Amino acid sequence: MNPATVIRAKRDGGELSQDDITGFLSGFLSGEVTPYQMSAFLMAVYFRGMTPRETAILTRVMVETGEVLTFPEVPGLKVDKHSTGGVGDLISLPLAPLVAAAGVPVPMISGRGLGHTGGTLDKLESIPGLRTDLDAGRFRRVLAEVGFVMGGQTESLAPADRRMYALRDVTATVESVPLIVSSILSKKVAEGIDALVLDVKCGRGAFMKTEEDALRLAGELTRVGTLMGKRVVAFITDMDLPLGSAVGNAVEVRSALEILDGDGPADITELVSTLGAAMLLLGEKAGTWSEAEARIAALVADGSGRERFRAMVEAQGGDGGVVGDPSRLPAAKVEVPVPAPSPGFVVDIDPFAVGEAVVELGGGRRKAEDEVDPSVGVLLDRRYGDRVERGDVLARVLASSEASGKRAAERLVGGAYRVEAAAPPSRTLIRHLVTADGASPWKGGATWDSRNGKGGSPGAGGAGGRERR
Amino acid sequence: MNPATVIRAKRDGGELSQDDITGFLSGFLSGEVTPYQMSAFLMAVYFRGMTPRETAILTRVMVETGEVLTFPEVPGLKVDKHSTGGVGDLISLPLAPLVAAAGVPVPMISGRGLGHTGGTLDKLESIPGLRTDLDAGRFRRVLAEVGFVMGGQTESLAPADRRMYALRDVTATVESVPLIVSSILSKKVAEGIDALVLDVKCGRGAFMKTEEDALRLAGELTRVGTLMGKRVVAFITDMDLPLGSAVGNAVEVRSALEILDGDGPADITELVSTLGAAMLLLGEKAGTWSEAEARIAALVADGSGRERFRAMVEAQGGDGGVVGDPSRLPAAKVEVPVPAPSPGFVVDIDPFAVGEAVVELGGGRRKAEDEVDPSVGVLLDRRYGDRVERGDVLARVLASSEASGKRAAERLVGGAYRVEAAAPPSRTLIRHLVTADGASPWKGGATWDSRNGKGGSPGAGGAGGRERR
Repeated sequence: MNPATVIRAKRDGGELSQDDITGFLSGFLSGEVTPYQMSAFLMAVYFRGMTPRETAILTRVMVETGEVLTFPEVPGLKVDKHSTGGVGDLISLPLAPLVAAAGVPVPMISGRGLGHTGGTLDKLESIPGLRTDLDAGRFRRVLAEVGFVMGGQTESLAPADRRMYALRDVTATVESVPLIVSSILSKKVAEGIDALVLDVKCGRGAFMKTEEDALRLAGELTRVGTLMGKRVVAFITDMDLPLGSAVGNAVEVRSALEILDGDGPADITELVSTLGAAMLLLGEKAGTWSEAEARIAALVADGSGRERFRAMVEAQGGDGGVVGDPSRLPAAKVEVPVPAPSPGFVVDIDPFAVGEAVVELGGGRRKAEDEVDPSVGVLLDRRYGDRVERGDVLARVLASSEASGKRAAERLVGGAYRVEAAAPPSRTLIRHLVTADGASPWKGGATWDSRNGKGGSPGAGGAGGRERR
Repeated sequence: MNPATVIRAKRDGGELSQDDITGFLSGFLSGEVTPYQMSAFLMAVYFRGMTPRETAILTRVMVETGEVLTFPEVPGLKVDKHSTGGVGDLISLPLAPLVAAAGVPVPMISGRGLGHTGGTLDKLESIPGLRTDLDAGRFRRVLAEVGFVMGGQTESLAPADRRMYALRDVTATVESVPLIVSSILSKKVAEGIDALVLDVKCGRGAFMKTEEDALRLAGELTRVGTLMGKRVVAFITDMDLPLGSAVGNAVEVRSALEILDGDGPADITELVSTLGAAMLLLGEKAGTWSEAEARIAALVADGSGRERFRAMVEAQGGDGGVVGDPSRLPAAKVEVPVPAPSPGFVVDIDPFAVGEAVVELGGGRRKAEDEVDPSVGVLLDRRYGDRVERGDVLARVLASSEASGKRAAERLVGGAYRVEAAAPPSRTLIRHLVTADGASPWKGGATWDSRNGKGGSPGAGGAGGRERR
């Protein structure tokens, strides 16, 4: 394998062989292929793309150059969920315990927030004492005991991904579908899963700004995942508004606890129900969509999800008392209300602006090495479509100082919220279901059942997509 | 300047500003921009190109980060010639002394051979004692004394070019027109020239395989050179056959001496006359094409070119006695004839195969650090269009051993020479004249005069391109 020959072949639009890809990537890890050759290769991939076959080979090599987890002691198909990232996206927190409570093991490895998007690990670590830096042994023990586990990527899982991502980040080669796909799937496959539900977000608050781009990414993720022998489905969901009504770290944990108590915002409840039902079906713990959704609803109603969450918190060294007493979570020093500047309807809340406001408050990161303040955030009391009077509290900023709180409040009223006289049109949260065979507009659970050979079901999923207000 | 932002802008097809380019390149030289960022940038340039303005800025920065030669003590416009490289291309050796003898100073910095193409420095160094590693002081003194000088690139001239080329070579980013243009022009501008005549070769033995690619490169070279305030013209010339009748190092010096004695192959004589006339006109030592060509012819006839060559050899420490007695040049141990396998006409001589045969003999380089044997080479006794009988000597291989000589001879008869019953069509050596304003088919000196505002001239240049047989 001559590195320049492999780069040239990709540059010229050729399809690389198994040997080319394996040689190039293992050469990179051993030092035989230099970082400047890898970055030229990554830029050539940016322009030329990769076939699903090439991406699957690349992903496989990324997985195999590290440790691969297996859980022979945990019965059942292991299923995980991955979101491409958004604002207020706390879905993993209530979803994983509910799915685990239904009998599907969830070995979840999550990331940290960067830029305007939050990260599950940061949110979890606002729970006093909770550790996410679990080694493979502890990760396995928590999964076996609790049925789910929420850890961070370790040095030994898909190390090629970390090294490639570090290069991509500084060479303008992040935005490449096959590279994104291999990065996501290498980490997930190394977790030892059998199936994966993807939440591919699109809109201003997401990495993919357009539905077209999101469909393209979801298509590649499902095709490559399937080539790797995993069951993978993706939902395209709206990130042109923040999810839920809390953005931050401790505030999102608090919101997750409300969802597990059956008292969450409609959009998050819908997404937990949909993604959870899909995970149950892939994990073969439900036979039809309606059965799966009903099971998730029952596990909220009887408190099983909440108790499963508490068990995970305690197994990972955290204060289980936060479940039932969220006042034990870190609280911000200052609360600054954001009043409506005029009467009317909330016609827009820009999720990017909200996410940036939280970063400014100290609740997110500009650089990977920044510290996060778990107590700060934004509570979105009024949401898209809500009617307000002048002076009504649109949102509350939770800050560490009056000054930073006021700056964030100004930012929210000036750049995130828009209030107008006329009510805005309704929006659909869940847009498409994507599998390796193609994409369909999401019309509720009937879409799943008909795509998965169960025939139409007029049951719990309903016949039409739910509205987002 | 954020390096990733500059890479992204180029990746997305934007035109970079002076500050972007200056910051990125000087950052690369200072270490602030890493080699992996530079190689990603180079690959983005490969795909997106650069405007002439961007290329001129890049070239200017490459020049300014090193030493720039000036020759205030040498009167007159300094003019150089650059060839994009070929097989048997010894033109610089007779050209520079003839142009210097006409009163145009030629501060020439040349390169070494790599792959199938030869290099002027290697050829010159076959002259016993001759040095090409001249420091700036000696380079200047030889130019002032002799009127021309032939040195190698020093560490201090356009150091960015060397560092960028080293990266391009191993990251499949060599074949990019703006990068080739900036590499060529940065070295030439750093030489302190006022004008430049380019010989852009096209065909199997050249870097640019097609006339279209050669025209594109020549167009960019002339446009960018003009933006940099230099007078630059280019000729597109044929490299689908070897030039002249000698390929190697000492054999090409011997051939150059024959040309300076008025006894060279027709194609080389034509090219020396044409490129020389162009240099005299750019250097303002002739007013019309016919006057310029007549001047070159006169300087051959009266021996001025030959004596000027001897003066350079001696000023650069070499044995001036080789002029007049070429037997003082290194001679090969073995001469192996290549007989014609059948009667007919020489319908093809593949210059790439000839060049590769010389590399195999030890007369060229596979890698930059290889040593070159000055004595070996190939003499092309029969050339394109020549009639031969079976067994006639087509060529002679000059080798260091019988075995290597025989291998090369087999290669020549099997892969380079083709003899067929019918005579081949005639070929045109000089195809186009290219300036910043566009390209014209070359019809002899009348093309130059009409393009340069002198009106048509039925004089020495003739009305039609000369044939190559």
